[in-house]
Amino acid sequence: METIQPIVYKPIGVIRSPFSTLEGMPIQPSAARGIKGTVVLNEEYVEGLSDLDGFSHAYLLYHFHLSKAFKLRVVPFLDDQQRGLFSTRAPNRPNPIGLSVVRLNRIESNRIDIENVDVLDGTPLLDIKPYVAEMAGVRDYRIGWLTDRREEMQSKRSDRRFREPPE
Amino acid sequence: METIQPIVYKPIGVIRSPFSTLEGMPIQPSAARGIKGTVVLNEEYVEGLSDLDGFSHAYLLYHFHLSKAFKLRVVPFLDDQQRGLFSTRAPNRPNPIGLSVVRLNRIESNRIDIENVDVLDGTPLLDIKPYVAEMAGVRDYRIGWLTDRREEMQSKRSDRRFREPPE
Repeated sequence: METIQPIVYKPIGVIRSPFSTLEGMPIQPSAARGIKGTVVLNEEYVEGLSDLDGFSHAYLLYHFHLSKAFKLRVVPFLDDQQRGLFSTRAPNRPNPIGLSVVRLNRIESNRIDIENVDVLDGTPLLDIKPYVAEMAGVRDYRIGWLTDRREEMQSKRSDRRFREPPE
Repeated sequence: METIQPIVYKPIGVIRSPFSTLEGMPIQPSAARGIKGTVVLNEEYVEGLSDLDGFSHAYLLYHFHLSKAFKLRVVPFLDDQQRGLFSTRAPNRPNPIGLSVVRLNRIESNRIDIENVDVLDGTPLLDIKPYVAEMAGVRDYRIGWLTDRREEMQSKRSDRRFREPPE
């Protein structure tokens, strides 16, 4: 067994978006189509962006900086009943790491113009990885409680629920 | 601008796999088809696994616990020339967070039998998220320097390169 010790990360940049509050923000990139933002990478990492312009999409990993204490069962935006936290993308998690796929429109120096942005303005960026669907090696798949919510997934926006103090 | 302060996470469990060293390990899940492992979640989080059994796949986010100092240009496994770090999945990163999509075979108590495992045995787990391709909202996409390497992507295994001390 590994020794369990804290893992310390630091932001490599910040994500700029039109969303300064959670209300009305799209809750995943599919509902955020066309919404533009900017990744502002700290200058020291700029060389690491080489070759990224060949990719149309990237994963952004970021810190849910406004997340609150988590609960292990939550009522997700796309449902009206409690679901296990790890079957949802709720921001209040033991390690509040967010994951989004964004379109890369233009990279210039340390700035990346992105599209399909479903994150809050000022979100601390942790990592950028190229999006390569083939790598996941997924053929057919099931999506559990979300199966009947494919339509809604394309449009749903957040509300206040994850701002409530945890019970 | 947000104040930049360290972000502290702690493992919520550990990933068990047949790979005790980097050599020979598949470098992404597509090359790890059929390879089995286990997520062992810390008992305190078990309730958060409810409803995950409806999903066939999940994202695992984990800490590359053996990662070394990063370089902003690396020669990736699938290439013979240097590429910008953020256009690769190399494990040595400013924040060494790994991301894999795995198949979920069986969830029992705090253990999840998984398949398509491309991580080292003993890797500290940070988060589990349901895999929902529709959420990414990606239609057509480009994969840059990887375009001509789709075949190889299905089989490539790692070698020693990321064990070398950074220059």
